[in-house]
Amino acid sequence: MGELIEIPARGGKAVRVKKGQALKMINTHGHQVVDTWAFNAEDLTEFMSMEHLRAMLGTIFPKQGDSLYTNQRRPILVMEEDTSPGIHDTLMASCDVHRYRLLGCTEYHENCTDNLAASMKELGLVAPETPAPLNMWMNIPVADGGATSWEAPVSKAGDHVLLRAQMDCIVAMSACPQDIIPVNAGNPVEAHFEVLD
Amino acid sequence: MGELIEIPARGGKAVRVKKGQALKMINTHGHQVVDTWAFNAEDLTEFMSMEHLRAMLGTIFPKQGDSLYTNQRRPILVMEEDTSPGIHDTLMASCDVHRYRLLGCTEYHENCTDNLAASMKELGLVAPETPAPLNMWMNIPVADGGATSWEAPVSKAGDHVLLRAQMDCIVAMSACPQDIIPVNAGNPVEAHFEVLD
Repeated sequence: MGELIEIPARGGKAVRVKKGQALKMINTHGHQVVDTWAFNAEDLTEFMSMEHLRAMLGTIFPKQGDSLYTNQRRPILVMEEDTSPGIHDTLMASCDVHRYRLLGCTEYHENCTDNLAASMKELGLVAPETPAPLNMWMNIPVADGGATSWEAPVSKAGDHVLLRAQMDCIVAMSACPQDIIPVNAGNPVEAHFEVLD
Repeated sequence: MGELIEIPARGGKAVRVKKGQALKMINTHGHQVVDTWAFNAEDLTEFMSMEHLRAMLGTIFPKQGDSLYTNQRRPILVMEEDTSPGIHDTLMASCDVHRYRLLGCTEYHENCTDNLAASMKELGLVAPETPAPLNMWMNIPVADGGATSWEAPVSKAGDHVLLRAQMDCIVAMSACPQDIIPVNAGNPVEAHFEVLD
């Protein structure tokens, strides 16, 4: 409780959070994206879902104070605090081996999809699928007409979000290893979190 | 081949489409949304994925000429023709029992999520999950700042999209039964399709 835990650079970490507890996620260096998932601890087939969250909130950009909804349209987390400018992404899939192959990689590249699976496995769990993540601090502007672009985060070192659990859940996080396009300012690093009462 | 098949009002229909064939989907009455999914016939765990499609296309609004991508970032369909104004939605989850419960329904309401499952079952198949659908003709404007709204379709009677299969696939369609909010202009009706060489 309150112990500062590292999400290793290019790696993932999952943690159990009880209803009422909060996960404080810290953008230690300011320019790091953290792909974030949350699963109902009692039933992993219920999980935070971007397509349901957008429908419930009526926005593509969840903000401080918003509930974050599952595929059963129930709040699983509340974003109680956000010291960053509030730029997070709900639109983009987590990176994966296919993404890096298309970007020209001929050898294995760490990726958020595999990090989700590995972090769940550390808890003895298997995610039933790879939901679209809440990409914390990822800066994907949407232009008039719908065009998206991949930009560097606008957050600063030490920014945090505080996510309050609305049910017992597993929160999985991946410090995005993307180093080819600028979403992590070209320099993927570690981030941190702590679980608070 | 070429037979006009009905997607019944408030119901679903799935069909096998071979690589190279095209599915012509017709908005018979003009104001009907059709939630659309596509699965690789050889491996149902590969399917059209809105979060991967957006990342591949760099837009939230796929247009005539665009490939529609799977969760393995491969084209499964190409939107070869679109006679409508090109307003389709990639953001919103298919409606489900939870959605209608929150809208005040106390009894069962038909929904696109159940229609997907039922239409796959008619082919002896089980979808491995409920991917976010491509909501054909659904009009979800996104305002500057990210706010979304639920509007009536801007298509007209007889508009069609022609989807050319890039692999053997199953295409599942649901004539959205939403009659509480205006996405189907308040009047859910049937649509049609045909499979063409």
